Amino acid sequence: MSNEFHVKGVNIAKLPSDYGSTGFKMFKGSTLNDVEIAYETWGELSINKDNVVLLFTGLSPSSHAASSELNQEKGWWEYMIGPDKPINTNKYFVICVNSLGSCFGSTSPASIDKSTDKIYGLSFPELSIEDIAKAGHGTLQMLGIDHVHTVIGPSMGGMTALAYALMYPKSLTNLIVISAAARALPFTISIRSLQRELIRSDPMWKNGDYDKKTSPLNGMKLARKLGLMSYRAANEWRERFNRARIPKNETKKMFDIEFEVENYLNHNSEKFVSMFDPNCYLYLSRAMDLFDVAEHGGTVNAGLAKIHTKRNLIVGVKSDILFPIDQQTELAEGFKKAKKNVKFEKLDSIQGHDSFLVDEHNFSKVIYDFFID
Amino acid sequence: MSNEFHVKGVNIAKLPSDYGSTGFKMFKGSTLNDVEIAYETWGELSINKDNVVLLFTGLSPSSHAASSELNQEKGWWEYMIGPDKPINTNKYFVICVNSLGSCFGSTSPASIDKSTDKIYGLSFPELSIEDIAKAGHGTLQMLGIDHVHTVIGPSMGGMTALAYALMYPKSLTNLIVISAAARALPFTISIRSLQRELIRSDPMWKNGDYDKKTSPLNGMKLARKLGLMSYRAANEWRERFNRARIPKNETKKMFDIEFEVENYLNHNSEKFVSMFDPNCYLYLSRAMDLFDVAEHGGTVNAGLAKIHTKRNLIVGVKSDILFPIDQQTELAEGFKKAKKNVKFEKLDSIQGHDSFLVDEHNFSKVIYDFFID
Repeated sequence: MSNEFHVKGVNIAKLPSDYGSTGFKMFKGSTLNDVEIAYETWGELSINKDNVVLLFTGLSPSSHAASSELNQEKGWWEYMIGPDKPINTNKYFVICVNSLGSCFGSTSPASIDKSTDKIYGLSFPELSIEDIAKAGHGTLQMLGIDHVHTVIGPSMGGMTALAYALMYPKSLTNLIVISAAARALPFTISIRSLQRELIRSDPMWKNGDYDKKTSPLNGMKLARKLGLMSYRAANEWRERFNRARIPKNETKKMFDIEFEVENYLNHNSEKFVSMFDPNCYLYLSRAMDLFDVAEHGGTVNAGLAKIHTKRNLIVGVKSDILFPIDQQTELAEGFKKAKKNVKFEKLDSIQGHDSFLVDEHNFSKVIYDFFID
Repeated sequence: MSNEFHVKGVNIAKLPSDYGSTGFKMFKGSTLNDVEIAYETWGELSINKDNVVLLFTGLSPSSHAASSELNQEKGWWEYMIGPDKPINTNKYFVICVNSLGSCFGSTSPASIDKSTDKIYGLSFPELSIEDIAKAGHGTLQMLGIDHVHTVIGPSMGGMTALAYALMYPKSLTNLIVISAAARALPFTISIRSLQRELIRSDPMWKNGDYDKKTSPLNGMKLARKLGLMSYRAANEWRERFNRARIPKNETKKMFDIEFEVENYLNHNSEKFVSMFDPNCYLYLSRAMDLFDVAEHGGTVNAGLAKIHTKRNLIVGVKSDILFPIDQQTELAEGFKKAKKNVKFEKLDSIQGHDSFLVDEHNFSKVIYDFFID
């Protein structure tokens, strides 16, 4: 049975050699068969294959980071990738992979397990950030690419980029980690843990065995609302919404929404829930909690010392409450201690963790400067 | 039918005159009949009745702020109230009222509506912070107390203390507002809005018409977890839990708790849900969103200018994410602009919004100093 995900511009890599038919060895020991990874590309691979930029995503986006001739819909990082943009596709061949475990074309808990002809659901093996990195590496192997100019990722993608640099230290030259961390803090773990509990508390979740048509939409909506709250910053919302009310509605029931900020959360969470598979959300969310650079060397600093990139760029935002700036400071300090070349950009963006998506002004500049150097 | 709440040391005030038998006029226009308010007292009322300290609580506590001869169980502010403690009961007569709308003895959505002999539930009228202040005022009237030395309150109790000073400006000499605000910010509104939605999403909530024995315990637990996350601070949890794991459990199911911080949230939220009535939670939570000092004068500053206290103390904590320090700064600046005597204490406590409950060292000092002056 072939992959059912068909979106123009999206390619599917059926992972080769030890990645593929004999099984994809997961970081925690399980084996996953018939792994497929969805990816999109922009720009042209140079003859020397020395212009590859590998992009890992946050938890929720697909591989559609930017529009292309095949799919002109705007991507989630449209301002960043394209001709003469900060990641200049006149010069670089950009590959964005949909994470292993995500539901936009890659093998995931929402995929059919060929051995049973049923959807994996919770029979999908435990997923690690390292598996997502390995699946990205496998995708490049399939394309005949042994070396990457730069691995870049924001949020979960930043953790994945770190994992990639730890696992394949000789296969990349540069590393860019944005609004990410060497490992999750307890506050962040508690947010994600509660999000998972909200999904699992929805009676429609049915221990992961829901039907696609009757999936736990309310649990997903609640989890997404909590996510949106953690992705933004209190001061931005103060400026944007303050205490503005929605128009009076005489049929309003007790405890219905009343403030604009509630309306915003309702609207944005509803957009999301119809797109994302609940079990995939659980697996990816948990993988972020469990990731720890210290597992690659005993301590975070020992792990970072194993990374052999030529140049490293760490970007963080002071208003981020999910991956606070202290965590990017920790990464930058770790590279410095290991005598690595590192540039640390502490940005004043007011949009919290989501700044990389929306603060084009600040983010364009730091990424542009990195690739121009 | 008399109040069913019987705890040693708790008194019930059946509100007199215009507060009582002819109905308690609510801030938003409804009338509530037969209002009863639970309260506890410590110390002795002086002959001149000039030593009264009126304490309003946060959303969840009862009137049991400190132990007494009648009830030796520790109270929620045990370190603060007692002989030779910062609020010295050798000198002051302290009254803590259970908020109107709360389920610890005061009239609330969990009370019996005598006109129908049924529990109010959602037929309880819309509750405002001003109603809680008025019920406190009515309780004092019933005790023959016309004037208060100091009105003090933390969190929701701080909002209530502000409302009291706005509504009865001639009936108090001093005001202490702790970790509170002139009005809620959109980020804080979004947290409380989601908490209410978690309760309302529990199928056992039944549109507020649940049976006491089958109440929406899971929704309450989820809401409480989110509350606990907003009451504390990321850095405190980093020091306290970091990434510590709970002991391995071989029967663990997928997505079960794994980290100590998850265990802490589980344990503490379970303690709470069996104690607090879900509808009361909804009403009190919404009242906090809707409170706005600006409704008492057009702007926050115009409202604060109407307060005629002799001395004002504003206390805030830098690590508070629910009522951020900017909001206590706003209060202090407002008093200053109106040429009022105000002292502003910005504390370095690391425990976030909950600091007033646990940071005995810092809070004892500022409250002690205020009452000694």
